[in-house]
Amino acid sequence: MQEVITLDYGSGGKKTSSLIDEIILPVLGNPALSQLGDGAVVDGGKSLVFSTDSFVVDPYFFPGGDIGKLSVCGTVNDVAMAGGRPRYLSLSLIIEEGLPADDLRRIIDSVGAAAKQAGVEVVTGDTKVVEHGKGDGIFINTSGIGTLVCPGLTPAAIRAGDKVLVSGTVGDHGTAVMLARDPMLAGGEIRSDCAPLNELAQKLYSLGSDLRVLRDPTRGGAATTLCEFAESAGLTIELDEGSIPVDPAVRGACDMLGLDPMYCANEGKLLAVVSSEKAQEALDILRCDELGEEASIIGEVTEAHGARVIMKTSFGGSRILTKLAGAQLPRIC
Amino acid sequence: MQEVITLDYGSGGKKTSSLIDEIILPVLGNPALSQLGDGAVVDGGKSLVFSTDSFVVDPYFFPGGDIGKLSVCGTVNDVAMAGGRPRYLSLSLIIEEGLPADDLRRIIDSVGAAAKQAGVEVVTGDTKVVEHGKGDGIFINTSGIGTLVCPGLTPAAIRAGDKVLVSGTVGDHGTAVMLARDPMLAGGEIRSDCAPLNELAQKLYSLGSDLRVLRDPTRGGAATTLCEFAESAGLTIELDEGSIPVDPAVRGACDMLGLDPMYCANEGKLLAVVSSEKAQEALDILRCDELGEEASIIGEVTEAHGARVIMKTSFGGSRILTKLAGAQLPRIC
Repeated sequence: MQEVITLDYGSGGKKTSSLIDEIILPVLGNPALSQLGDGAVVDGGKSLVFSTDSFVVDPYFFPGGDIGKLSVCGTVNDVAMAGGRPRYLSLSLIIEEGLPADDLRRIIDSVGAAAKQAGVEVVTGDTKVVEHGKGDGIFINTSGIGTLVCPGLTPAAIRAGDKVLVSGTVGDHGTAVMLARDPMLAGGEIRSDCAPLNELAQKLYSLGSDLRVLRDPTRGGAATTLCEFAESAGLTIELDEGSIPVDPAVRGACDMLGLDPMYCANEGKLLAVVSSEKAQEALDILRCDELGEEASIIGEVTEAHGARVIMKTSFGGSRILTKLAGAQLPRIC
Repeated sequence: MQEVITLDYGSGGKKTSSLIDEIILPVLGNPALSQLGDGAVVDGGKSLVFSTDSFVVDPYFFPGGDIGKLSVCGTVNDVAMAGGRPRYLSLSLIIEEGLPADDLRRIIDSVGAAAKQAGVEVVTGDTKVVEHGKGDGIFINTSGIGTLVCPGLTPAAIRAGDKVLVSGTVGDHGTAVMLARDPMLAGGEIRSDCAPLNELAQKLYSLGSDLRVLRDPTRGGAATTLCEFAESAGLTIELDEGSIPVDPAVRGACDMLGLDPMYCANEGKLLAVVSSEKAQEALDILRCDELGEEASIIGEVTEAHGARVIMKTSFGGSRILTKLAGAQLPRIC
């Protein structure tokens, strides 16, 4: 750890892990928290999934969504990735003095629309206002409760021979937000993929224990999530670059900005690891849903090279993918 | 509503109510949210209490506590006031770039100690970092889940003849934080009362339906909470000023600062409305607990003057108390 917290510690990559490992877990660790999943499974009569996320995206309006929609989808997706059917959300606003009331109205409308789409209710909330210059427009925290319907989703369940699937193009959200920050680049066709994935996840739950793990690759992108999978499972994930769906406009923008779509946040995509036997069925399930039309099997799990993610490039080479180091994309969600 | 959000909207008083009534509830209202209680009661197999709070207190270290302790106690207390036994917390950090890592360590240690004291587990979390100048050191959101053990606590259950109790001195937290902001005034004896009230609340649950409602009067202070009770019940609350416990040092500081302890936040006190028959029993329960030693019956509910809070002063006069208007004490929790 450095002696002051820098933006890198919020990247969702290596430094975020070090902050959690060195400061949070030694004090607060317990079996539920230490899993570091998207949500915690806790017992509340029947088992529940509980998740939280604070959203600080800059700008708070962007093509394809806004911080209101994002704050619902992000937590709904975290609950769903942990095997839960999301039911209830909390909504907590930290508003910077001077926020236009019309912006707040528009954001709350988005919260309402996204909650309706996802089939969840906002049941409790809080509002704080901080002085001008002590915040940035609006930050939103949502926490979510769901009923556990698909227990046992964990990277520890991954086995050699399993296939890795993605539900669609990678990098759309991160790229859309980066472009929205620059007046010279804004106004293009790239939109955030921000969407609630709970219905899509629910369909995959039918695979039972052949579905090993689900995760929505937000900060740090698909590459960082897959590194976490490989690390937890102690296995190699071998990816086929040619099979990873990337929107051509996103690829072009990333090339221009010096970004890699595999490290750009997604807010409406999931990664699934599925047994080899059920991989085609999982692919069919995903492709039958509007949110999974461009799903693809992008790689497989082996024991070849230990706990690593290896990308076989389109040119026949291969390279090792590591977790995002530092803040490629600060404040992307 | 004004056209921009000002600090007044975060005061916990009238303007916060107007923001919620005009912007939030028309879009997101549902039976659970529209109660505007400290926590929502939702059904998750057995009934659960779910609550959320974001903490933006300035400064984040103050006599008697810090933002870490506050963020645990605040949510634990909200769950307990809604009749729940708090069990699980989420913890979401919004850190400003440049926060000393040692400050974060100290805050997380406080979270751990307070969680242990309250008997709750932090089971899920999130960490974001924003640029220097876009936050203020650290903001923390906690959400909490509890098992509903005392259903039916609501201001609507208040009846004429009921007694109003407070568990101890009012205004300690708000005054301590205000003094901590001023280098000329800091270093005195006044400490925040920040404490988990779940054990104390649990003891009051034994009163059954004679316990009408519980609330921890944070932002807006005891006066604002009592106004909310009177408004919801459509009844008059008549307070006896002489019976309201105020620490002499707090009273002196408030006189100097031009504040009223009845409008200063508390973080370790509860207000209870109890049937006349059980009021003495409630007082005995409170006084037997370390956190309720200075409990007092401070008033009674009548039908005399409609939905109002009236303070009978020590000088034989009376005045109407209204909800806090504007930001007497911004960023107090």
